[in-house]
Amino acid sequence: MKTRRIFLQKAGISALALNLSPFSPLLGANEELNMNAMDEKPLRVAIMGLGSYGSRVARAMKDCKRAKLVGVISGTPSKIEAWQEEYNIPAKNCYNYETYSQIKDNPDIDAVYVITPNGLHKEHAIGVANAGKHVICEKPMAVNASEAKEMVDACKAAGVKLLIGYRMHFEAKTQEVIKMRMNGEFGKILFFQGLSGFIIGDPTQWRLNYELSGGGAMMDIGIYSINGARYMIGEEPIWVTAQETKNNPEKFKEGVDETIQFQLGFPGGAVASCLSTYSMNNLDKFFLNGLNGFAEMQPSTGYGPIEGRTHKGPLNHPHVTHQTTQMDEMAAIILDGKKPLVPVDGEEGLKDMVIIDAIYKAVKEGRKISLV
Amino acid sequence: MKTRRIFLQKAGISALALNLSPFSPLLGANEELNMNAMDEKPLRVAIMGLGSYGSRVARAMKDCKRAKLVGVISGTPSKIEAWQEEYNIPAKNCYNYETYSQIKDNPDIDAVYVITPNGLHKEHAIGVANAGKHVICEKPMAVNASEAKEMVDACKAAGVKLLIGYRMHFEAKTQEVIKMRMNGEFGKILFFQGLSGFIIGDPTQWRLNYELSGGGAMMDIGIYSINGARYMIGEEPIWVTAQETKNNPEKFKEGVDETIQFQLGFPGGAVASCLSTYSMNNLDKFFLNGLNGFAEMQPSTGYGPIEGRTHKGPLNHPHVTHQTTQMDEMAAIILDGKKPLVPVDGEEGLKDMVIIDAIYKAVKEGRKISLV
Repeated sequence: MKTRRIFLQKAGISALALNLSPFSPLLGANEELNMNAMDEKPLRVAIMGLGSYGSRVARAMKDCKRAKLVGVISGTPSKIEAWQEEYNIPAKNCYNYETYSQIKDNPDIDAVYVITPNGLHKEHAIGVANAGKHVICEKPMAVNASEAKEMVDACKAAGVKLLIGYRMHFEAKTQEVIKMRMNGEFGKILFFQGLSGFIIGDPTQWRLNYELSGGGAMMDIGIYSINGARYMIGEEPIWVTAQETKNNPEKFKEGVDETIQFQLGFPGGAVASCLSTYSMNNLDKFFLNGLNGFAEMQPSTGYGPIEGRTHKGPLNHPHVTHQTTQMDEMAAIILDGKKPLVPVDGEEGLKDMVIIDAIYKAVKEGRKISLV
Repeated sequence: MKTRRIFLQKAGISALALNLSPFSPLLGANEELNMNAMDEKPLRVAIMGLGSYGSRVARAMKDCKRAKLVGVISGTPSKIEAWQEEYNIPAKNCYNYETYSQIKDNPDIDAVYVITPNGLHKEHAIGVANAGKHVICEKPMAVNASEAKEMVDACKAAGVKLLIGYRMHFEAKTQEVIKMRMNGEFGKILFFQGLSGFIIGDPTQWRLNYELSGGGAMMDIGIYSINGARYMIGEEPIWVTAQETKNNPEKFKEGVDETIQFQLGFPGGAVASCLSTYSMNNLDKFFLNGLNGFAEMQPSTGYGPIEGRTHKGPLNHPHVTHQTTQMDEMAAIILDGKKPLVPVDGEEGLKDMVIIDAIYKAVKEGRKISLV
């Protein structure tokens, strides 16, 4: 199969470009399966930013039924070449940051998944919107709420959809807990706890460069606890308090948070207690506590299988690579107008950014920040 | 055996009063065992306050090897009568709150365990100290640090020991984790989390009466998370922040806290995140996270068996009724000058109260309170 891919690619054509029937004898078993699943029109996606997370999404998309990786945008020619080879991407679907506005003239790309550093999301997402393509933007969608608002407005003005790269919102065990909460199975929700952290390596990476990251652990991993608090409790917080601890100011420079504890208050009386850190190993726990039951998840947001249990017993849904499900579901949202269990659009991402702004403000001013 | 107890009691005498040899044929098997274990002089304890927790301590003391319940102080004659029957307590060792200062003339009582409402601890502990008896005072030792300091000073002036009714400091699994931390097995300690709460019942009980309780959940159950943070991390906090949530102001009146989240910062860079509540079911979790390992305990402070594991595996120490171990160990501290793994004296209790004062202040003023 690899041989034929290379042949097709060297010939500058893809199976799709050849307009092969899904039952063509030229297609191998895997491709036939995928094409069968793609009886419906797939969402044809270009990935912008071919770093490690972009690569993870691309690999996951190999198993997608409704979404298909068809293009790339990168400043690094050697990466483009490698991806063309690996994913059978035609040259006409390859762009760099100088040329990607021309994507507007490319009828074979429906959407661009922006997976560049946080500090570039606004420029890139708006650039994609202005090229008339739907935007999927990795989270955090921006470095602050003001940028996020600009992005939401720009996508609205351009008439394209803006989705945020939420994985967990589509994960089966997570959804089961959300459904149980929606059905009132936990009773009145009283408490959510999220512990999100890991020890970040290479100190020269963009995630530790304020200009590119817009922050530190909060932007990267703490946001999972913010998301968790919101989708587990099912309300929007009305206040936030936060406390920062920085033990390694060499590694975590001005503006790059190492460890922040934050607390959220909710209109129904629930509270959330969360930890965001770049200095602790494998902190990945959610705990939702209601008057009549609880849910515990650990790992709660990692890439591997989520493990969890509720007062009713263990959660046994099979693991599916999160990004595979995410991209298929996002294809259905964009193409079919499917309504997800929990919103994943730009307005949702903006809510995260409003909270992150408030967390940083709470740290700086040392007081409770109201969100209403 | 019950028959003989009743006989001895009706005759107004106890086995001890009869000065029976431990090997006397008048003693049953259980008593012989206890007497054998009491080859060393036991700590002869009177319990002041015969409520539900006092009763729990008394039952646990039946299995003690070094401590012995020999007296009671209560304002309720019917309770005294029932305890005399149950515990074979001679009339000469029974007092009420008007007469207990006379305990100074009773050579058969070494120490008094004060288990009255928090708001009365200071008066009672100082009263016992002034009667020349050692004081064991249930926690919280007082309703604020100022009272606690008075108690420490009074006991020092009277030349008696003051111990605080810490159970967990002697519990085997808890001690194992503390020893592992002392041995550096977790590496640098980064995070402690304590969730302490339950749904309190009867709204008319003294624990919900500010005059008697001096506070709410924090005084009663949140203090376990404070203790846990201190003995698990092995440092004293340098700052505290706290946020209160009160959903039921009818049940939890002015000054009686329902739910407080609090955070502690430690000089070594660790942080603690804790929850204290009277409105959530069975919250009883500790989590200690270091650079090289972790400990999780759930239940972490309940009366039943503690369950826990570390990165090395499950903690398998057998369960012993906490108050049995506590009272035996306290006997060794008082009688032999034994040094406990973690201090349990009045100075230790005072540290709790300083933190509780700061938590209430942090809630009231909405800012970080320094503890140094």
